[in-house]
This record gives sequence, structure tokens and C-alpha cells, in this order.
Amino acid sequence: MFTKNETDQSNLSTTDRLRKEIEEFVCLSEQELDFVLDHFQLRHFKKHQIILHEGDNAQHEYFVLDGLLRVTKLDATGKEHILQFGMENRWITDSEAYHTQSKATLTIDCLEKTTAFSLTLEQRDKLCQALPKMETFFLKKTTLALLTLQKRILCFLSSNASDRYHHILSVYPGLIQRVPKAMIASYLGVSRETLSRLSKTNP
Amino acid sequence: MFTKNETDQSNLSTTDRLRKEIEEFVCLSEQELDFVLDHFQLRHFKKHQIILHEGDNAQHEYFVLDGLLRVTKLDATGKEHILQFGMENRWITDSEAYHTQSKATLTIDCLEKTTAFSLTLEQRDKLCQALPKMETFFLKKTTLALLTLQKRILCFLSSNASDRYHHILSVYPGLIQRVPKAMIASYLGVSRETLSRLSKTNP
Repeated sequence: MFTKNETDQSNLSTTDRLRKEIEEFVCLSEQELDFVLDHFQLRHFKKHQIILHEGDNAQHEYFVLDGLLRVTKLDATGKEHILQFGMENRWITDSEAYHTQSKATLTIDCLEKTTAFSLTLEQRDKLCQALPKMETFFLKKTTLALLTLQKRILCFLSSNASDRYHHILSVYPGLIQRVPKAMIASYLGVSRETLSRLSKTNP
Repeated sequence: MFTKNETDQSNLSTTDRLRKEIEEFVCLSEQELDFVLDHFQLRHFKKHQIILHEGDNAQHEYFVLDGLLRVTKLDATGKEHILQFGMENRWITDSEAYHTQSKATLTIDCLEKTTAFSLTLEQRDKLCQALPKMETFFLKKTTLALLTLQKRILCFLSSNASDRYHHILSVYPGLIQRVPKAMIASYLGVSRETLSRLSKTNP
């Protein structure tokens, strides 16, 4: 299920999608856009494909054009937790492994057939050095991601499952119709029973 | 309780402290440092002083030189939750209110007498525009803050109070000796009893 804006966006070309994303914060000339695009690679992934295994090098950050990715963490008891979903127009990676160039502690897999732009850290650094407005763009995106994580932490601290449910509805519009309830419960850190109660009282 | 490094740092002048912080990521000439300092203001706060009230404009971000700040959120039931501590060499504000220039939903108070540099968003933006290496600095700091929040979320998801306790030990070395146990429990989202058990088994 998409909002109108997202339906409109899906009619744009892949390069226009990336341009629109960047131009929310900084303007690019045609020449600059071509230069930016030279640093990205268009990738196609199958449903269920694992694109990052725990222990591998996290070589890429992804900007999702279509489809749905999931970032998970296995805890010491073997239980899987969902840190993040990557739906349309989201940036996703194992951030720590990517930015510190250390081994991945997270796994990324495709919940749907997915198309995404990928960007290595080396290419990202080169891009920011050559075109400072891309550094401005990444600073603004990273700041927004930080605000989203802070809200999620406040949701956890308030210990109010209803707040957490509303949080996922606002952060990932339409997600609840696209994935099994068990995944929503895993992201929220609540039991299936609690989720079932919440989805009945917050349709 | 300080690490050796922090003790050494406290002998530096306030401007050298800020320079050291920035030069972890980018180098500054004497002229550039003077220019950067022109954008900051040195502030002194008393113990128990509230420096941001919920509902006020979050005009400043703070770089703590000495002392200890705390960012709290009151939930709908009137219970107080601790989102963040601001000890030496930390940047602290109500990030959402500051970056979106909206009303504060958080409160910041001084747990100790505190000295800090303050920076308005307007001054920060001017600084980044005039000196792009400061944008590089803020991007790197924001990325590190994002990684810390992701780890905290993974701690919450794993539902393992011991992991959360180790997280606070690594993120805020020495904090446990500086604040009441009730505040540590509030930050961790655990009961006083659970914290007491953890501090006995993880001295």
C-alpha cells in the first residue's frame, strides 16, 4: 500500500528518484547529478536473497528504489531481532560495520524483490570531497536518522506498547500490510499477543 | 572518576579542549580555530539549574567541558525517563527541537556544576557554510552518535538487562560513580532491584 506521493515517485526513472531524494536538501545541476550517479551502482535482488551476512565486510550502503529489505541481529540465545526495515526511499546498511569498515554484526535480507542503488564508503567519501553539497546532504539525512532513533528509544523507555505501535505506523507507512505480524512484533520488541491487541485497538 | 586521558584533558584550556575535539576528525589552522570559536559561547551553569524546559525553544547545542547534564522526558503518566547524559566532551541538546527549530519535548538539567560551549543552529549553519571542514566534523560526530543509538536499541531489543548495563559502562565511563542508582535504572529502563543485581554481578 503506497501513499499518493510514493505512487507518483514510482513512475519516475531510477535516476530521477535519486535526484528527488538529494534535492530535498541540496540542488544539483545536470552535470553534478551525472557526477553523483557515477558513484552509485544500480542493483537488483531476489526475494529472500541475503545481501549482507553477519561476519562479512559491509561494503555497501543502499538507497531502496523498490522492494523491502530487513536488518536483523541474532542475540546470544539465537533469537532474531529486527533493527530496521528498508522500504522505498530509505537508506540502509549495517551502519557500524560500514562506517568503521569492520565485520558485519547484522544481517540484511530481502523481504521482497528489491531494486536499490548501492554506494561504497570509498565512493561516498570521494563524492563528499569532490562535491561538498553531498556532505551537506548526508549530514541532513544522518541527523534525521538520529532523530528517528531517539524517538524509538523514547518509545522503549516509556514502556508503552501503544506508543511503539504508533511509532512504526508513522516511520513505515504501509509496512504493516506488507510483512507478517511476527516481524512487526520483533521490531517493536513486544509479544505476538500484545501486537494483536494493539492492532485491534489501533486499526 | 576519570580515565587518565580525561584528567590530562582537564588541564587544557577551554579553547584547546574544543580544538582537540574537532581535530579528532579535521585539522584547523590558528586562524580557522579563532573563526570557529567566534561562533561558540562559553557558559557556566549551577548544579540543579534547568537549562532547557519542555515547551521552550531549544536554542543551543552544548559541548560539555566540565560537569554533567541530563536530558529527560516526562511520559503521559508523569514518569521521568533519561534519554541521555552529557558528561565531559559530549554534545547534548534536545536534538529534534534544535534541528527542526520546534518546541522542546525534553528537559535538560545540570546534575553537577557545569561549564560548556553553546552553539545556536544559526551559528552552526553559518560555520558549516563558511568552513566546509566543520560540516565534515559534524557529519562524523552525528554518524558516531547514530551508531551509539543503534547499539542502545539493540540492547533494548535483546531484552537483556546485563547487556544494557555493559552498554552504559562503555558509553559513559565513570558515570555510575557520579549519579544516584535510580538515574542509571531510569536510563537503562530497568527496575532498581534489577540494577542492584547487575551491579553486584558486574562490579
